[in-house]
Amino acid sequence: MSGIELLRRIAQPGDGRIVLLVLDGLGDLRTRQQPRTALETARTPNLDALAAAGALGRIVPVAQGVTPGSGPGHLALFGYDPTSAEADIGRGALEALGVGVDFGPGDVVARGNFATLDADGRVADRRAGRISTEENRRIVAVLDRALREAAGEGRIRDLAVSVHPGEGHRFVLLLEGPELSPAIADTDPQEVGAPPAALEARDEAARGTVERLAPALRVMAEALRDEPRANGFLLRGFATLPHLPTLAELYGLTAGCFAGYPLYRGAARLSGMELVDCGQAFGELVDGARRRWRDFDFLFLHVKDPDKAGEDGDLEAKARALEAIDEGLPELVALLDEERDVIAVTGDHSTPAPMRAHSWHPVPLVVRGPFCFVDDETAFTETAAARGHLGTILSRELMGLLLANAGRLAKYGA
Amino acid sequence: MSGIELLRRIAQPGDGRIVLLVLDGLGDLRTRQQPRTALETARTPNLDALAAAGALGRIVPVAQGVTPGSGPGHLALFGYDPTSAEADIGRGALEALGVGVDFGPGDVVARGNFATLDADGRVADRRAGRISTEENRRIVAVLDRALREAAGEGRIRDLAVSVHPGEGHRFVLLLEGPELSPAIADTDPQEVGAPPAALEARDEAARGTVERLAPALRVMAEALRDEPRANGFLLRGFATLPHLPTLAELYGLTAGCFAGYPLYRGAARLSGMELVDCGQAFGELVDGARRRWRDFDFLFLHVKDPDKAGEDGDLEAKARALEAIDEGLPELVALLDEERDVIAVTGDHSTPAPMRAHSWHPVPLVVRGPFCFVDDETAFTETAAARGHLGTILSRELMGLLLANAGRLAKYGA
Repeated sequence: MSGIELLRRIAQPGDGRIVLLVLDGLGDLRTRQQPRTALETARTPNLDALAAAGALGRIVPVAQGVTPGSGPGHLALFGYDPTSAEADIGRGALEALGVGVDFGPGDVVARGNFATLDADGRVADRRAGRISTEENRRIVAVLDRALREAAGEGRIRDLAVSVHPGEGHRFVLLLEGPELSPAIADTDPQEVGAPPAALEARDEAARGTVERLAPALRVMAEALRDEPRANGFLLRGFATLPHLPTLAELYGLTAGCFAGYPLYRGAARLSGMELVDCGQAFGELVDGARRRWRDFDFLFLHVKDPDKAGEDGDLEAKARALEAIDEGLPELVALLDEERDVIAVTGDHSTPAPMRAHSWHPVPLVVRGPFCFVDDETAFTETAAARGHLGTILSRELMGLLLANAGRLAKYGA
Repeated sequence: MSGIELLRRIAQPGDGRIVLLVLDGLGDLRTRQQPRTALETARTPNLDALAAAGALGRIVPVAQGVTPGSGPGHLALFGYDPTSAEADIGRGALEALGVGVDFGPGDVVARGNFATLDADGRVADRRAGRISTEENRRIVAVLDRALREAAGEGRIRDLAVSVHPGEGHRFVLLLEGPELSPAIADTDPQEVGAPPAALEARDEAARGTVERLAPALRVMAEALRDEPRANGFLLRGFATLPHLPTLAELYGLTAGCFAGYPLYRGAARLSGMELVDCGQAFGELVDGARRRWRDFDFLFLHVKDPDKAGEDGDLEAKARALEAIDEGLPELVALLDEERDVIAVTGDHSTPAPMRAHSWHPVPLVVRGPFCFVDDETAFTETAAARGHLGTILSRELMGLLLANAGRLAKYGA
């Protein structure tokens, strides 16, 4: 029996709420050049108090040595095996879900960038001068009109193509129709000075999709031709929608997502969470959680800032981001009923400042609930976490611990 | 997805070299009678310096409580699941590979001992008075002539039988031909005073093989009859060659083996390593590694001495063996580029002196690379290793960590 099947089998209703606070890219490194991690550098009295009142441990996102993307990192935290075929999900699909594009099994999505092309049709700016989201919406409306007109005239056939605005220069392309394949190469050359790549099938099965899609892309190119900045577009990450059993189906959880970024919202939506509208700052997420507290059994909050600072290689900024979260933490913790609710704080992966990238290193974890072992650790750091009572577990094992602490798992066997 | 499939999928080229130094039987025990382990007894300033500069942890060779043979112990270190069907490999096959016998899928090999038989045909000395390797080669040439003559006369049919010298009294028997089965019982009675066992099939499928092989064994027995010491031979461990994907196929690694003993060379060859000719002493292995440093991405060095001393129950000898290795360690470490190369020191299993045998106990591990977490541990001992940042992992999980540290794994998922 897989881990998720076991939990599904013994899941039971309970009163305890579960709060999962994900500090993106939380874990960090000690190296010769950087003798202290971000958590060791930051002053975090409230996280430390949580550590003192709860149990520490570490999570390994996917497997030893494996650096996860944000999709697998989050799906594992929600209890799914990120290496299973069903959880093998393109970023395009996750972001499309995250910006609220409604699509179903069989449909194909891709991530799009509006871009600036020079007179020779080469990419001059991959982000079209970082146009505003309002500008994006205006351009999407132009494209929408052109695509509908072309479809009406029979220039696009056996395929419904639509464009959906994201943040800034980003959009989602949605294809609906029979027998679609996502095995299509990116048209994004990923560099300035090169022209967008031609639309190409990566296997036989995708040829029909490419043939039907090509006229629509020509219509889009034509419609953008006279735009001052967004006179072109780049596509990548063609993908179909996977099906995962939801947290409601698996564990009977009514789950809410408090996250500002499309990718994390997409992962949450895939697991059946309701996407609550709120900002991206930690305080806004906490406000949202307070407002909707009674509506959910499971609240997922996602803060992006530590990962951003880690990717910039900026230890100080990462420490400051952690301090800002720490400062707002008591307001979140105050929502919990200490007698029955559970809170876990961890990350989807490490983003050590010395690496300026995601990494494979274990991520600190603290869990506080009525039946957590109060271990000897009183600081929320990588080294304290390595000594904690929870030990080092896989991310996908965390959900079982949280359900148990919330009184939501029955005894297994007689 | 299995661990090895996952790693294969995300493996990428990289500049970092990986050095895996295996101290055979490294781990030891504290018992009431032996209050200090070999590592705690030995003075090992250079291993300790490596521990201070890197991350400590422990490996469990196969599974909790499972004592591995040297074959599974090493295959796991190379990243293979030692309990998988494809890695279930007879010692005969490993040693045959290790002495350089060229054989392919479908061929059958067995390990042979030259032995002294008494006038009644009973085993008087299972090792023929430990004849020299030169004497061995002379005898093998005699057998080779006899076998070829018999084949030419049609006394051996539908089967090519050849004999290959090993070290001292050891040889390898190789059978080539159609439809061979390795399900053949040992003829080695494993005791003095008993006659060699008759050649017997262990199942239906092996009957044909036994019938074809029996005449060849009679030819060999006849050819040895007048030898003064090696007037008989004992066979054990009939096996076929398994197929494992090589480290080149899996991870794009060009790998070299620096090991003096056939068994470890065999395991290395099975994983596709080039077997570099060098001696058995640690200094000789390091000399070999220095000479061939630029030819390999992955260098496996194997030192037998700690295991030998452990098997003799000689704690002092084991500690001295570790001190000798420690003394030579700086020369090996000096070969590494600190900015990108990775070195791991561990064992294939524990051989605690109080047990005089392999055991199941976790084995200390130290890894030093540019992105290892520099933990608080500064001594290379069993107890420090239990507190280290790497935690306790399975041997087969080590390869992922080493590849990651060498920059040879891409991010998994978007």
